Amino acid sequence: MLTLFHHPMFATCRFVRLAFGEYGEELALIEEKPWTRRKEFLALNPAGTLPILLAEGDVPIIGAMVIAEYLDETRGVLKRDKRLFAEDPMQRAEIRRLTDWYLSKAESEVTRHLVRERVLKPVMPETAGGGSPDSAAIRAARANIRQHMKYTNWLAGTRHWLAGNRVTYADLAAAAALSVLDYLGEIDWREHTAAREWYTRVKSRPAFRPLLSDRVRGLSPVSHYADLDF
Amino acid sequence: MLTLFHHPMFATCRFVRLAFGEYGEELALIEEKPWTRRKEFLALNPAGTLPILLAEGDVPIIGAMVIAEYLDETRGVLKRDKRLFAEDPMQRAEIRRLTDWYLSKAESEVTRHLVRERVLKPVMPETAGGGSPDSAAIRAARANIRQHMKYTNWLAGTRHWLAGNRVTYADLAAAAALSVLDYLGEIDWREHTAAREWYTRVKSRPAFRPLLSDRVRGLSPVSHYADLDF
Repeated sequence: MLTLFHHPMFATCRFVRLAFGEYGEELALIEEKPWTRRKEFLALNPAGTLPILLAEGDVPIIGAMVIAEYLDETRGVLKRDKRLFAEDPMQRAEIRRLTDWYLSKAESEVTRHLVRERVLKPVMPETAGGGSPDSAAIRAARANIRQHMKYTNWLAGTRHWLAGNRVTYADLAAAAALSVLDYLGEIDWREHTAAREWYTRVKSRPAFRPLLSDRVRGLSPVSHYADLDF
Repeated sequence: MLTLFHHPMFATCRFVRLAFGEYGEELALIEEKPWTRRKEFLALNPAGTLPILLAEGDVPIIGAMVIAEYLDETRGVLKRDKRLFAEDPMQRAEIRRLTDWYLSKAESEVTRHLVRERVLKPVMPETAGGGSPDSAAIRAARANIRQHMKYTNWLAGTRHWLAGNRVTYADLAAAAALSVLDYLGEIDWREHTAAREWYTRVKSRPAFRPLLSDRVRGLSPVSHYADLDF
């Protein structure tokens, strides 16, 4: 079984778990607190970031999209209509664009800040940047959520799945990011009915189940978080 | 001929130009000032970021690594020993890790800030965020350069090229990022002899030549910038 170093509230790590889950492959999970900068962890990845996959031969594969490309090359290509990527280079480019949108753009404009301020700071020691949340950072991130929800709603309203007719990495990346925000009760679904209908479908997939039972110490999810018919 | 929307001082755009240059394929270049948020530009890429490649059929392909994957899939696979990517999935993961290191991590810790403060702000209107440079941002970015140079020096000292025995995307990504910093005179090469020897080799490649003649209005490069035997 391959091993994933992850944090349950990082969208990039949730994305990798969803992708393996869709292919029915279990991962051994090791929860890592990157801010402690453990020596063994930095030896695996000098950038000090998650996720890290220990692949065949215990070779570390680093970064969400790098892992996704590896997974596609070693498993996905054999999955035919269950493949989470496309055959066509142009379609692959569109899937990569959207995956990057949610795991980099939404991450740096919204998700990362809310996770840091609301989830990590309360448990981080002060020497590692812990302490009381920065309300200006929370406000700025919240102001950006609307644009990302509007874009997701537009995509979900014009396509069956976000990048076209089939479930792809784009859906998993978006769902991973939104699931973190949803846990924190940061999403107002009422205004975004197409996005909500799409998210309900992703959330009902068996691969999503483990994410719905994740809990962060001292921080309960919003009441509808694990509800499949919210 | 394919068209690239770019900015001459963005490492991500330089990386794409180098990759096409290595394959001997010319690109039509359109210089874009992303901060003006031109309507036609945002229609191509709602994220408002560069680079954008107009590929076959004028389909926009967005983002440096997305373009690199597309280039490999449509050209690189036919290039045999000139291919800028590896055949093996594990080696490809290592190349992707390093490419991401320079185009995302070094970018967000160093390059982006120095380009914004020193190159863009003086020419941006105040309404778009222009104005006098933020010296704290410059100081913070400069403090981070040393770590990136040390890591580059370590890679260059232990491998012939950064990701192994052959020139790959990893070298082009690193050279693209360092060339921007070098233009600005931000790199002290004396302490990093292995990195310097490696950079001299990359800089001498024909694909690099167009980058060495790029000039930014009102900001001359450091004296050794275009010197192949600096």
